[in-house]
Amino acid sequence: MMHTARELARFLEAELEGDPEQPVRGLAGPEQATAEDLIYCEGERHRARAEASHAGTALVPTGLALTGKTLLRVEQPKLAFARAATLLVETALVARGIHPTAVIAPGARLGPGVGIGPYAVIEDKVEIGAGCEIGAHCYLGQGTWIGESCRLYPRVTIYPGARLGSRVVVHAGVVIGSDGFGYVRGPEGYWKFPQVGGVEIGNDVEIGANTTIDRGSLGTTRIQKDVKIDNLVQIAHNVEIGEHVVIAAQTGIAGSSVVERNAVIGGQVGMGDHCVVEEGAVCGSGSGILTGKKIRRGLVVWGTPARPLAEFKRQYAWFSRLPDLAARLKLLEEKLGDE
Amino acid sequence: MMHTARELARFLEAELEGDPEQPVRGLAGPEQATAEDLIYCEGERHRARAEASHAGTALVPTGLALTGKTLLRVEQPKLAFARAATLLVETALVARGIHPTAVIAPGARLGPGVGIGPYAVIEDKVEIGAGCEIGAHCYLGQGTWIGESCRLYPRVTIYPGARLGSRVVVHAGVVIGSDGFGYVRGPEGYWKFPQVGGVEIGNDVEIGANTTIDRGSLGTTRIQKDVKIDNLVQIAHNVEIGEHVVIAAQTGIAGSSVVERNAVIGGQVGMGDHCVVEEGAVCGSGSGILTGKKIRRGLVVWGTPARPLAEFKRQYAWFSRLPDLAARLKLLEEKLGDE
Amino acid sequence: MMHTARELARFLEAELEGDPEQPVRGLAGPEQATAEDLIYCEGERHRARAEASHAGTALVPTGLALTGKTLLRVEQPKLAFARAATLLVETALVARGIHPTAVIAPGARLGPGVGIGPYAVIEDKVEIGAGCEIGAHCYLGQGTWIGESCRLYPRVTIYPGARLGSRVVVHAGVVIGSDGFGYVRGPEGYWKFPQVGGVEIGNDVEIGANTTIDRGSLGTTRIQKDVKIDNLVQIAHNVEIGEHVVIAAQTGIAGSSVVERNAVIGGQVGMGDHCVVEEGAVCGSGSGILTGKKIRRGLVVWGTPARPLAEFKRQYAWFSRLPDLAARLKLLEEKLGDE
Repeated sequence: MMHTARELARFLEAELEGDPEQPVRGLAGPEQATAEDLIYCEGERHRARAEASHAGTALVPTGLALTGKTLLRVEQPKLAFARAATLLVETALVARGIHPTAVIAPGARLGPGVGIGPYAVIEDKVEIGAGCEIGAHCYLGQGTWIGESCRLYPRVTIYPGARLGSRVVVHAGVVIGSDGFGYVRGPEGYWKFPQVGGVEIGNDVEIGANTTIDRGSLGTTRIQKDVKIDNLVQIAHNVEIGEHVVIAAQTGIAGSSVVERNAVIGGQVGMGDHCVVEEGAVCGSGSGILTGKKIRRGLVVWGTPARPLAEFKRQYAWFSRLPDLAARLKLLEEKLGDE
Repeated sequence: MMHTARELARFLEAELEGDPEQPVRGLAGPEQATAEDLIYCEGERHRARAEASHAGTALVPTGLALTGKTLLRVEQPKLAFARAATLLVETALVARGIHPTAVIAPGARLGPGVGIGPYAVIEDKVEIGAGCEIGAHCYLGQGTWIGESCRLYPRVTIYPGARLGSRVVVHAGVVIGSDGFGYVRGPEGYWKFPQVGGVEIGNDVEIGANTTIDRGSLGTTRIQKDVKIDNLVQIAHNVEIGEHVVIAAQTGIAGSSVVERNAVIGGQVGMGDHCVVEEGAVCGSGSGILTGKKIRRGLVVWGTPARPLAEFKRQYAWFSRLPDLAARLKLLEEKLGDE
Repeated sequence: MMHTARELARFLEAELEGDPEQPVRGLAGPEQATAEDLIYCEGERHRARAEASHAGTALVPTGLALTGKTLLRVEQPKLAFARAATLLVETALVARGIHPTAVIAPGARLGPGVGIGPYAVIEDKVEIGAGCEIGAHCYLGQGTWIGESCRLYPRVTIYPGARLGSRVVVHAGVVIGSDGFGYVRGPEGYWKFPQVGGVEIGNDVEIGANTTIDRGSLGTTRIQKDVKIDNLVQIAHNVEIGEHVVIAAQTGIAGSSVVERNAVIGGQVGMGDHCVVEEGAVCGSGSGILTGKKIRRGLVVWGTPARPLAEFKRQYAWFSRLPDLAARLKLLEEKLGDE
């Protein structure tokens, strides 16, 4: 896909400085870029790296001088770079056409342009929207409903009845709709609490490799639109995740918790059941949010149990000086004892 | 599956109040229930939700008044609800019959009524008991032995020689019998310590999605009957888990540790190697149990390193007041310095 | 595979005491061993177990007396035991020959002696070196390059373009080359930052079950030779892991972090992005290393935020005595208040 700096400028609504005919074929980091690559530079701090690059074209913010390159001035160079990728990077197809080895139930309905990879299994009453790509070895349980232009990488497993929106990207090894973890102790052992609810994934959600999302027990597990979930994350039954929430790797969210829109959840966070993380709150990596806890709107928390970041830092600073505090206390005791 | 309140009462040994002919077709949460659904209500606190429900039939404890519904009085409504599910909920089959695409070694032995899904691979000398369902894309390594009425969801991988009891439920993406993590450093790099032991899973065990259970190195990894394991849990080589143990998501149990019967292990717990969690002990979510540590019978522990909950809470309360303690100490120092 | 003590002694460069014709057919733990098994004993502490064993042959260090067995004296018995395993343990083949159900693109190139299991999918331009075994249900994306004598257990998924060295062992459920987790917030939602880099795995690396290794965003994710990675580990985009690094289960390493050679990373460690763990450093299990942090060469750290072990232990000891410290402070305050 050959483009020119002019075309890119138009696409990104950027201000062009330099050669409008500069060819742009791809994008790269400054060190890897060739003359026909696009790079981005967010500020003075990275200027040297950018100038040393072989890249012919660079996205820069207003006011940044960068010699020897065709410049595309924008407000947010990194954002523009991400947008440029949709033009410059051709994503490899996960599946093209219906592979003859795919096992597709007669009652499944496939939209136009759907690709199904080798050995995928599509059960009865599945509906797949136009332009979806379903990778090799995927399993779509009975009644799975998938919107348009979704991309399921190889080896995604979806239990019966799950619903995915459009443009959802699901990475390899993900399990959607597995039974939640609920048991009731009887006199002779555990009885499984019914795990018969649903799971609904909104538009533009991306789910990282080997992540697991359980179905609701009686209700529904809901992931709203534009949620981004990293690898090896666990989302339990009945959890609700609001729009534009970001969840980093290996975080676990226990049953019935609610994460409201625009919240940011770091990696390896542990959230007990029935928690609420309000809109825009940030849970630092590794923090632990106790069962039933509410994290207030916009708050940044850290630690276990999670508390406001500034508070935690102050407490932790003193933790580091505990041996010193103890020594000072001892000294006082000795002084007073001497009296 | 149409039932009546009378039938349910008999099945659950419940005391019936109201219309014995009230039809019951399913179960649901109070908000989702229709007239022909069963709900449960455990006490006063949830009475309003239950009364507002459209459900025609409710499981309630002795003494709870609930108007407008046929009541089934039992000691433990939630337990009865879970038991009712075995009558009211028809679990979707994971596999029905032997799919023609399944690759089954001639030396494998399948009991009556076994279902094998598309593209499953059953290696030589595998034995599968009556009524088992083996989902699509499952892989059963040579010599795997499986009891009766087990259910392996799609894409379960079992390494050679593993043994599973009866009524074991294994969710998608689980790996059983992978090599344990053991190496010996030599002059030029690591040598793998032999990982040639076995893995045995008892009756009525359930294993959550994408969980991994390693085989023993020289000995055997053992999961006793009625153990319930959540998603993304790691069980290392030679670990022994006693009966009725519950392990929540993302917990990791390192080599040769022992968790005795009836223990409860929260989510994201980290247990070092050679630990012992004695009978009935409870390890709170996120706690860390150091290598070789023993958690005494019935104890509830939390924190890293794990300690008795009450003790940890007391210590943690003071941690939160550390800045205050430090200020008070400073004040004393100033007072004494003034003298 | 029948051997004699003499053959083993020669292979291990061990000093033989006892019957050189003692047959050795396998290896085992002391309790499980039969007369024809080899065991090892590292010191006095384990002598009783070793002597009680039925094993006919034992690896022992210089100076350890052990009656009734043929002895092989070596400097490091456990290391010699691991080396002996290469002679005594016949690893079950993961795949033998090319299974007729494997889908292999015409443009893929397979070296001599390559085995491909049932339902594996090998895409175009894949190169697989001599003697590799590719298990059932594996997926090798376009342009994957694999060296010689690798072993991919069933159900490994490799995204397009990944490169693996020789003798790499990859366990079931591993995902290599999935997209890294990077987004840029725009006015209406998230844009995916391009994840178009590579992933390179060195010789003799072993990767545990259900672990995920993301490709680089613009650069490359690199795992050097002889790195050993346990189950359910997350390695993010652009991470670099040096030679002989060991990473225990459920650890997560965020983007662009560097772990230098010979470092040891415990289980459930969380490492932020852009960290550096210098050569030979040790990060204790469960420790948390904050974004951008550098752990100095050879240092042993623990806790969150990670700090030198001795320091952490000292601080933690006082944490445990916080209620006591507080009481002592109160006493002083009362004393001084009285004056």
